[in-house]
Amino acid sequence: MEDIQLKESEYKSDDPVRFKDGSEDSTMSPRCKVFLLAVVCVVFGLVVGVLIGFFSRSGGRASEEAGFEGLLTEGESWVPEALMSEVDPARIEGYLRKLTEKPHLAGTEGSYALAEYVRQTWLEQGLDTAHVAPYHVLLSYPDPDKPSYVALLDSNDDEVFRTAPREPSLDLDPPANISSVVPPFAAYSPSGIVEGDLVYVNYGRTSDFTRLETMNITVAGKIIIARYGKTARGRKLRRCQVRGAIGLIVYSDPADTVGTGPEASGRPVYPEGWFGPGTAVQRGHYLYTGGGQGEPLTPGYPAKDYMFRLNESESEPLPTIPAYPIGYNDAWHLLSAMGGPDAPSSWRGGLNITYRLGPGLQASGRARKVRLNVNVNRQVRPIHNVIGVIRGRVEPDRYVLLGNHRDAWNLGGVDPSSGTSSFLEVSHAFGAMVKRGWRPRRSLVFCSWDAEEYGVHGSFEWVEDFGKILTERAVAYLNVDMAVRATYSLRGRASPQLAPALLEAAKKVPWPVSAPEGKTMYDVWRKRTPEVEGDPDTKPRVDLPRSGSDFTPFVHRIGIPSIDLAFFQDTSMGIWDYPLYHTAYATFHLQKKIIDPDFVFHRAMSQLWAETARSLADSLILPFRLSEYGAVFGGMLADLESRYGSQLAARGISLDSLTSAVNNFTTVVETFDAEVAGAKITDPFVARMYNDQLMQLERAFIDPQGIPGRKFYRHTIMASRLYSSATFPALGDAIYLAVNNNGDTEGAWRNVQKQLSIITFTIQSAANTLIAIDLTS
Amino acid sequence: MEDIQLKESEYKSDDPVRFKDGSEDSTMSPRCKVFLLAVVCVVFGLVVGVLIGFFSRSGGRASEEAGFEGLLTEGESWVPEALMSEVDPARIEGYLRKLTEKPHLAGTEGSYALAEYVRQTWLEQGLDTAHVAPYHVLLSYPDPDKPSYVALLDSNDDEVFRTAPREPSLDLDPPANISSVVPPFAAYSPSGIVEGDLVYVNYGRTSDFTRLETMNITVAGKIIIARYGKTARGRKLRRCQVRGAIGLIVYSDPADTVGTGPEASGRPVYPEGWFGPGTAVQRGHYLYTGGGQGEPLTPGYPAKDYMFRLNESESEPLPTIPAYPIGYNDAWHLLSAMGGPDAPSSWRGGLNITYRLGPGLQASGRARKVRLNVNVNRQVRPIHNVIGVIRGRVEPDRYVLLGNHRDAWNLGGVDPSSGTSSFLEVSHAFGAMVKRGWRPRRSLVFCSWDAEEYGVHGSFEWVEDFGKILTERAVAYLNVDMAVRATYSLRGRASPQLAPALLEAAKKVPWPVSAPEGKTMYDVWRKRTPEVEGDPDTKPRVDLPRSGSDFTPFVHRIGIPSIDLAFFQDTSMGIWDYPLYHTAYATFHLQKKIIDPDFVFHRAMSQLWAETARSLADSLILPFRLSEYGAVFGGMLADLESRYGSQLAARGISLDSLTSAVNNFTTVVETFDAEVAGAKITDPFVARMYNDQLMQLERAFIDPQGIPGRKFYRHTIMASRLYSSATFPALGDAIYLAVNNNGDTEGAWRNVQKQLSIITFTIQSAANTLIAIDLTS
Repeated sequence: MEDIQLKESEYKSDDPVRFKDGSEDSTMSPRCKVFLLAVVCVVFGLVVGVLIGFFSRSGGRASEEAGFEGLLTEGESWVPEALMSEVDPARIEGYLRKLTEKPHLAGTEGSYALAEYVRQTWLEQGLDTAHVAPYHVLLSYPDPDKPSYVALLDSNDDEVFRTAPREPSLDLDPPANISSVVPPFAAYSPSGIVEGDLVYVNYGRTSDFTRLETMNITVAGKIIIARYGKTARGRKLRRCQVRGAIGLIVYSDPADTVGTGPEASGRPVYPEGWFGPGTAVQRGHYLYTGGGQGEPLTPGYPAKDYMFRLNESESEPLPTIPAYPIGYNDAWHLLSAMGGPDAPSSWRGGLNITYRLGPGLQASGRARKVRLNVNVNRQVRPIHNVIGVIRGRVEPDRYVLLGNHRDAWNLGGVDPSSGTSSFLEVSHAFGAMVKRGWRPRRSLVFCSWDAEEYGVHGSFEWVEDFGKILTERAVAYLNVDMAVRATYSLRGRASPQLAPALLEAAKKVPWPVSAPEGKTMYDVWRKRTPEVEGDPDTKPRVDLPRSGSDFTPFVHRIGIPSIDLAFFQDTSMGIWDYPLYHTAYATFHLQKKIIDPDFVFHRAMSQLWAETARSLADSLILPFRLSEYGAVFGGMLADLESRYGSQLAARGISLDSLTSAVNNFTTVVETFDAEVAGAKITDPFVARMYNDQLMQLERAFIDPQGIPGRKFYRHTIMASRLYSSATFPALGDAIYLAVNNNGDTEGAWRNVQKQLSIITFTIQSAANTLIAIDLTS
Repeated sequence: MEDIQLKESEYKSDDPVRFKDGSEDSTMSPRCKVFLLAVVCVVFGLVVGVLIGFFSRSGGRASEEAGFEGLLTEGESWVPEALMSEVDPARIEGYLRKLTEKPHLAGTEGSYALAEYVRQTWLEQGLDTAHVAPYHVLLSYPDPDKPSYVALLDSNDDEVFRTAPREPSLDLDPPANISSVVPPFAAYSPSGIVEGDLVYVNYGRTSDFTRLETMNITVAGKIIIARYGKTARGRKLRRCQVRGAIGLIVYSDPADTVGTGPEASGRPVYPEGWFGPGTAVQRGHYLYTGGGQGEPLTPGYPAKDYMFRLNESESEPLPTIPAYPIGYNDAWHLLSAMGGPDAPSSWRGGLNITYRLGPGLQASGRARKVRLNVNVNRQVRPIHNVIGVIRGRVEPDRYVLLGNHRDAWNLGGVDPSSGTSSFLEVSHAFGAMVKRGWRPRRSLVFCSWDAEEYGVHGSFEWVEDFGKILTERAVAYLNVDMAVRATYSLRGRASPQLAPALLEAAKKVPWPVSAPEGKTMYDVWRKRTPEVEGDPDTKPRVDLPRSGSDFTPFVHRIGIPSIDLAFFQDTSMGIWDYPLYHTAYATFHLQKKIIDPDFVFHRAMSQLWAETARSLADSLILPFRLSEYGAVFGGMLADLESRYGSQLAARGISLDSLTSAVNNFTTVVETFDAEVAGAKITDPFVARMYNDQLMQLERAFIDPQGIPGRKFYRHTIMASRLYSSATFPALGDAIYLAVNNNGDTEGAWRNVQKQLSIITFTIQSAANTLIAIDLTS
């Protein structure tokens, strides 16, 4: 083009230039006309050229901007549907069949083999990385050569009755190798043989022991028999231990595994039905975990191979008296032989006998005393968590974690392999999306935990190991343990700010079978497990994630907002632990023939879990609603006032500071939620600032000094209460102790004032994280 | 333009179209020529148009991109010079004159008045906000009606000598109201009158007491006299207390305030010179702060008005035996009267007497015993920090904090008002830049602390109050306490990763007077205080910020990398504390006539402080060099091996795990530094990720469980060592205790193994924060 030069003077034309209206400018000379033509042509060229130039550049810019704007986009709208469509119940069934083939007890080959299986599966599914994270933890196993048992002895110390060494095998379809399951035992029990009188303590709660005391029945020097339920195994045992008992037998009462009332007798027990047969025995660990630690020998630090270990005698959670669990067939022999006064009516279980308190046996029987023979060994062994990652597209250093434990007391038909099979399908679905070119904004971290059954060790050690990184980067932790124990309703537990995201996801997931309550998970959940009983507009009930599975270290040690999900039974039956919990009968058969034959509840769990995780990982601004926390505090404060207001007032203790802090917090979180919801995000740093504040609020509830007497329980709101059943935990406990004090009353009330000021500060401090760059409060 | 339509058929021309070479295409018809003309014109227009269109858009794009690119720019290059040019020594002099007019002891009107003055000054200087942050803390004051004193009593208990109640006023130019200064006292001492025999304990170190024990001189039941220096007041007192002494007198020996050697006699004392006269008395607090807490009654929580307070008897840091400080004129009367064996030669101070150990006085004198009469009251009073903010332009939620305490024992001529006057000039300079339209990338936070002299209370309480926010957001804390106590060299203390930024700034700041060592701060500093003695290429010496001023809570409680700066004397004189430290003679006169008459060292301090802060606040990527930490660990490990290697080996304790962790850490930080240095940053989230990692590394050294026995000392690297003088603090102390153990040897060596594994894990955990998104280690 540069070779062409135009000289105006050389252009000549005789033709008139016509305008579009057809008129002719006859006064123009031909030269003039040619000139005008040239001008018009140049102008035309210019116009078109400018447009071409402008938009060619504009087009380039648009694509370049996409790189920048891609940093500030919401997740793509087709993804939720596509992700959930990937979930296939047949594949879940296949996973569960594989997982339940053999036992996978922590610290054994079975669990390690599944760790490798999970790792390989994740890599095949398309995760970016998957690796094994091992720790060396104290575990506990029955002595293979010396079975434990309980026996009744006659006056010659001959055994006139002995309990069964394990649950009998059954003829099942599909078959299951029940005899390969570890025999019943109380994990971490010391070995020992004790003999003596029996005392029955109902569930072994503090209130049960108190009631025994009022009846002048002493437990010191006695062997205690308690029924499972209402309180943790380790706490039952600790209460016996501190009162001087010499051993503990725990049994599953039919009242708690078949239920009570007229319908109970018609309820089918395994292998025909879901309820508990008399041969079933609940395994479990008997650590006292009230201090909030995981593995017993490395409190506060990860159980790496080089880590210093306490001697067992120095470890606070380890029990010092032998314990052993039995089923109700065997318990019948012990309980029916007991003497002493009749048990209070509320202590009577479902056996067709007269429940008596002891101590000792009826003089009319042959048996004179009880022998408890326990042979259990503690060993430090390797355990294997598996960690898989899909890296985030924009913010790889923000993690949405999903976790489930892998180890099982049995073949794992429910606990945890119903969760694990759902989990493998969640990872499959995300992997399939990655193969289609999609990536979440933030990283997804998949965690397959080992040794949960022994006291949440796998996740505790990993959180201790990676606590600094997780504190800085973890957005949320989503746990599923027993995905499907029943199919009545959902039990959802969530940190308050996460509940709205969970409920939104539940609106997208279909309830897997036809139900009169509605079509979605949300519909059925809110009708069957309402937040507000009797309110037609109620939301589903969402509880706080206090303790009970692998979310515990996330919530209590480092303050990661967490969710825990499970399909649950109708608890109006009076059954809380599902009847086959930790027994040898939790088989594939149990799912395939009894609970979820088509695996559609498993599918629904995978869908809900995946979509909740996706929304947390893919939203530009985290879908947290902090004002939910304000409502929780308001409820705790109202509870405090109604329960203890007059007693506090009588001591001259004012709740004004706490009320003011709660009100201020509520205003601050509501203002913050509104600001975030209304913000038009055009600056990546603003997006990050909001998200950091949303994410970090939970950390503000972690007190590094811990809850009084429990230094590893650090979450000032979520800690389980030792004494009081509601309100702010440390404060509630302090008031309970002050009100029920018979010693240092002045000190106990001073402690109330201390805990009141600490929780006031903590709430104010949390509000401060949301306001103002300029560090005012 | 759209009105014009051109019809090709209407264009005709007889003129040939000429090309620039002049050749004529004579074969063309006129119509054809006109057509060709039109084409050429259109093409011309197109070309020009495309260019116009392209570049018009391009121009637009450049300005729009500036908005985005402004998020990823380095600080503007004109700023360092302009910022430092704002610093004016005359204005600093004016500030210091104002600050030293009246006493400003914590908890008094004088300190509150200056808090308001600082707040107003900051607002006038152009800071965005400035507010007062009050706390209610336990302070301590001499009883105004009952002076404290030490007396010598004769056999009738009549006083034959009594110490001076305060330093005498002096005729000064400029004048100073010395009599308005609080009389000498030992803050937090209990009141009480004790009488008895004197024992001299040199500096009152553990080794001094041990030496006394070897000479069979007991301190139980005695009044102790110790000289100031070498160890903290509170520790001297604690050592007396635990050994059963009944009182403590501490005096300033001329050996430590005038120095020793032949030159000492020629050194001018105040008001002629810098050295200490016999009337000067060092005030100070006598808290035992070895536990790492601030205010004594609210450990771990901010001393808000509603906060629960311990009873004084429950507070671990409060002393329980009376103490009182005196000058060497008065001490002469006591020491020269003492009996007992001669003190070891290294215990002899600079008084022209025979130093004797006691117990008791010489029989030849009139005096029979000593009376210590202390009248000091503890009171909870409000204190007032002032917090000012210049909000960041891009990342307002990242803070570079600058701090200095404001309260003084005296008129504050050195401690802290030389720092405060420099500080007000730093804020002036930044404010002036803001008025010129500049803003740093990150926020600058200016902190004027109260009650530092009482045990670092103001900053401790604020850090306890805002710990969650600061943990998440604080980049660094830059402290200056006594800016100019002398003008020989700089003493720089810095967290290792901050040292390079400090040294870079020091290269930009001129040494304020002509010096043979060079022109810049860096030049003179490295020659006079070299890192490596005798190495001509040495860098300046930078120490670790262990303790001693308001950086303590930042470093030890929450792990904020910190810097502390001071102009210092030549310590080869044998004087460490500057001679008039905490005496009534630290006046404006001291600066104007003796130390820094032209305030050019003050100017240099402001410049260094400001430029260091600017570089941290304005750099796109934080100018941290993490590999400096690797070198520190390498040094500590080498020290450990050379000091204790054989003893550890003899116990079968291997350092392999620790060595491996240190080597791995070193590799990781070097790789990370190189990666960051080589990165071309085009993504805001990548910038933020790098910066978060750089910033958060220090947090990884915080162990929420604390150092053994000192739960509020949480920094596993920086904690001051109780026993051992080098290497990793908790491990070093554990080894010292094991090696010097005469009790539970097995337990002591087990503790060594425990501390070894904890520090190993901590270092590994810190390395983990830098590697990998996928949570491998």
